[in-house]
Amino acid sequence: MRERNFVSSRCRVALLGFGTVGSAIARRFNSTESSPSDPQLTHIFDRRAGEKRGRLHADSLTWTSSIDDVLQSDVDVVVEAIGGLEPAVEWIRAALLAGKSVVTANKQVIARHGADLATLAARQGRQLRFEGAVGGAIPIVRAIGEGLAGDRITRIVAILNGTTNFALSRIEATGCGLDEAIREARDRGYAEADVSADLDGHDAAAKLAILCRLAFGLRVDPSQIELRSAAAIGADDFARAKRRAATIRQIAFADYDRAAARLTAWVAPIDVDRSSIFARVHGPQNAALITGAHSGEIGIFGAGAGGDATAVAMIGDVRAIARDKHAIVPAPVLTSEFRMLNSLLLEAS
Amino acid sequence: MRERNFVSSRCRVALLGFGTVGSAIARRFNSTESSPSDPQLTHIFDRRAGEKRGRLHADSLTWTSSIDDVLQSDVDVVVEAIGGLEPAVEWIRAALLAGKSVVTANKQVIARHGADLATLAARQGRQLRFEGAVGGAIPIVRAIGEGLAGDRITRIVAILNGTTNFALSRIEATGCGLDEAIREARDRGYAEADVSADLDGHDAAAKLAILCRLAFGLRVDPSQIELRSAAAIGADDFARAKRRAATIRQIAFADYDRAAARLTAWVAPIDVDRSSIFARVHGPQNAALITGAHSGEIGIFGAGAGGDATAVAMIGDVRAIARDKHAIVPAPVLTSEFRMLNSLLLEAS
Repeated sequence: MRERNFVSSRCRVALLGFGTVGSAIARRFNSTESSPSDPQLTHIFDRRAGEKRGRLHADSLTWTSSIDDVLQSDVDVVVEAIGGLEPAVEWIRAALLAGKSVVTANKQVIARHGADLATLAARQGRQLRFEGAVGGAIPIVRAIGEGLAGDRITRIVAILNGTTNFALSRIEATGCGLDEAIREARDRGYAEADVSADLDGHDAAAKLAILCRLAFGLRVDPSQIELRSAAAIGADDFARAKRRAATIRQIAFADYDRAAARLTAWVAPIDVDRSSIFARVHGPQNAALITGAHSGEIGIFGAGAGGDATAVAMIGDVRAIARDKHAIVPAPVLTSEFRMLNSLLLEAS
Repeated sequence: MRERNFVSSRCRVALLGFGTVGSAIARRFNSTESSPSDPQLTHIFDRRAGEKRGRLHADSLTWTSSIDDVLQSDVDVVVEAIGGLEPAVEWIRAALLAGKSVVTANKQVIARHGADLATLAARQGRQLRFEGAVGGAIPIVRAIGEGLAGDRITRIVAILNGTTNFALSRIEATGCGLDEAIREARDRGYAEADVSADLDGHDAAAKLAILCRLAFGLRVDPSQIELRSAAAIGADDFARAKRRAATIRQIAFADYDRAAARLTAWVAPIDVDRSSIFARVHGPQNAALITGAHSGEIGIFGAGAGGDATAVAMIGDVRAIARDKHAIVPAPVLTSEFRMLNSLLLEAS
């Protein structure tokens, strides 16, 4: 365990997972753009730390393949970039219990365990932030969870899966088949090997469940959201839509009737008017129209996929936690004797 | 001074000013929508409190025409809805010095004194939030200041004045003159008696200065932003623009070249392509396209004006402060004896 440097009030950050998103985050922390007052990346956990440690060198950076090294360290924030349900959810829970704040973009974890983890974070006096779990770099989690927290949100209509949107807008533009559109998405890094969760709507449903909790205060199991697959959509469907001055997008829809306590939620490829905001969302972009009782419709759109976009969202979350930490926990005022003692401790360690 | 209720950890809120925005906020706090865990409005300051107090009754609500009653009270958050530079800026400063967090939508105060007030708030370990100062209910302050804090923002292009946008899109739709369009804006409550600050660009310039500080970390005096007035735009100009497949919008533009440390910033009525997002922004809506080095273009649009939209933004800010307070300051754990003692105190008070 490293000695805590009491003189510095820099927020200390551990990163779990050095894959596509993790390495993008680490590079940003380690770039010349970062200033001395920025949060500092002090630990990287990766199962293959021994093999990967050569990819990033930095002063005061510890690589480890033991999660306990992170949990027992003095970091303030744990950034989870492992993906998948297990062990990510266990490690997020352990980090909160160890007094760390947590940043994640793990939509599966937040869709299934977000409410419990948020309760745990609040009890621990720590933060759980997950802007990157929905909409990539688009600050939709903040828009719904904080910006429109002063309104009563009644409806969300959104494009939440960049892979499917890339494929559909590709078919629209070129008249190609779905298989070819998916191949091209893979070539450009917008699709994984298995796209079934994208096309079938499971990915968008997990994200929609997260937004339903934020917007309506409802716990929604993603499996309760009705799905219709986009896997059979072809150029013919677009030709038919075009004759009706429409095009096709995979839309995630949620409408909450508070009086009747009834939620309507589905994900499906549907016709959208060519003049609508959704028809104008091309490639891997995401978009959302949020209706509030007092503020009317708020729209938001932008880059929804890719390691860089997710890294932007996660670094923004780390900075928000660092800012709160500085604003709320005053930096310790050290007497000169204590400072001396501390510097001796540091030298001795 | 009221007895502090130790059992409740509800965030206590004072409202300064019971005008259009202030009364919209007070009504929302006092509505059936609010739950017992919501922040609680405990004080309303208004110069004419004696005359206005009849307009809102609530338990535990104190009306006052003395600002000291608010500053010396036990409220956690002061919501400034007075408008104008003085005395608003002095009272915001005094509230921060008295250990209160502050929520304001006062664009003049934040454009001119935002950096100093933010520094003071951080020193005091309190928050200064101003989502309503730019873009009404659109969470653009959060999007730039927090959501994209993980990116390096390079450019902002925006429609920031709802009055001018209403007038211009009205001329576009009906071919009427500017005077008639402004009359209609007034009739619908989208324009004040004096619209010169709207049409000339001073209002948008103040908002753009605020966004420049958030996006680029620059202190920009609104008077340094180059302005071209929209006061001479007429139906002829729209006809000419239409022939070029364009329309006219008052655009606020800021581009920061970090390498050269050069900011380009202006507000002017310009031709925008009819297929652009800005051409599709009608009536009193606002919109912004924000370019980040890593996340590309993020767009956001929605209701930019009106007391209700501003109230949504300000209540969202109060809730964010209340949430942080609860997350970071643990609610006191009461033994049953203390709870009993406390309830006795409450009965006695």
